[in-house]
Amino acid sequence: MEKAVVLLSGGLDSATCLAIASQDHDVHALTFDYGSKHSREIESARAIAERMGVTDHSIINVGLDVIGGSSLTDEGMDISQGGGTDAGIPTSYVPARNIIFLSLGVAMAEKIGASEVYIGANIIDYSGYPDCRPEFIEAFQQAIFKGTKAGVEGKGVIIVAPLLSMSKAQIIRKGTELGVPYELTWTCYAGGERACGKCEACVLRLKGFEEAGLADPIEYEG
Amino acid sequence: MEKAVVLLSGGLDSATCLAIASQDHDVHALTFDYGSKHSREIESARAIAERMGVTDHSIINVGLDVIGGSSLTDEGMDISQGGGTDAGIPTSYVPARNIIFLSLGVAMAEKIGASEVYIGANIIDYSGYPDCRPEFIEAFQQAIFKGTKAGVEGKGVIIVAPLLSMSKAQIIRKGTELGVPYELTWTCYAGGERACGKCEACVLRLKGFEEAGLADPIEYEG
Repeated sequence: MEKAVVLLSGGLDSATCLAIASQDHDVHALTFDYGSKHSREIESARAIAERMGVTDHSIINVGLDVIGGSSLTDEGMDISQGGGTDAGIPTSYVPARNIIFLSLGVAMAEKIGASEVYIGANIIDYSGYPDCRPEFIEAFQQAIFKGTKAGVEGKGVIIVAPLLSMSKAQIIRKGTELGVPYELTWTCYAGGERACGKCEACVLRLKGFEEAGLADPIEYEG
Repeated sequence: MEKAVVLLSGGLDSATCLAIASQDHDVHALTFDYGSKHSREIESARAIAERMGVTDHSIINVGLDVIGGSSLTDEGMDISQGGGTDAGIPTSYVPARNIIFLSLGVAMAEKIGASEVYIGANIIDYSGYPDCRPEFIEAFQQAIFKGTKAGVEGKGVIIVAPLLSMSKAQIIRKGTELGVPYELTWTCYAGGERACGKCEACVLRLKGFEEAGLADPIEYEG
């Protein structure tokens, strides 16, 4: 089987993406510890990788908290409440986050000889994030062909975003088919012991399970 | 003055790039601590920024040593000896390094409202590095326009590589005109107390000073 790097945040989308990639790839999961307020995601990523039998799992520190500029990493900003489908770019937007994470994924792919980097980017529920858009993924792919040893000397590393045009409900149905342990995933931005059920990420997750006609296996506050 | 982010490694090229950007920008220097064997560069970056009166200087940790794959970060690989102009991609190539660093630079630019990211990439002396080529810079620029808030909502962040087509001698002459403190820069890959004078980076540096008709102010071993 060909190798693939899968960006695994510990959230619902990336866990589903890991299951999809694992169907026909020897996967290497990659998680970033980037000073996010919800670092609990990293523990989820570890648990998901273990449960799904992924033996290659790397965790890379990236000091995005030095940059700040997002309610997810900046101590001075509040986590935004409510849906991410509101007009404009949400305060949880981390400047250039997917660009940074994809770059690191491509570096790992070059190192281990993987032909693909999987990312759980999704445009339907997060229309406000510029780096989740297909136009970005396509342009970035060209940069990767031009700027890497793998691209210059061989076929290059291909960015695969299988969830890009799926609704949250479709993602959850697909993942359920593939046996994704959603009880281990962590979505909430608020950083409490249990998911808050109110932040934009929780709202989208709950709506997704409802539309999929499935029960969300995690516990919520209140 | 408009703000600009300048990627400052502590080497000769990036110090010159900082001087060029400082002529007409309010600069914010950005240095990466990426588990390189020659972390002494970071101390050089600090000293250069201080000497050049740059008050905004951020150092971001990026765990590229987790990835490895380069003689600069991988304990299992030797630093390559000799010139970087040999055929092929040098072992010191760090997978996707400039892609990662530019992504982080763009993130910082978005945060502080800078219109440009300066990088000291240079194609003449490092023809073997794919992510120093103009084709890469141009393709990456397109990805940045498409994938950032600054690109979607405004003019975007522009990547500026003023040294791209300059020879090492031209870079040194330009930097000398601008008063770059080359005595504070660190170029050697070998990690000794003094520069080795033999690794690919030292060889290119020495050749550059010789061709510029100037004395290299740093001390070398032996």
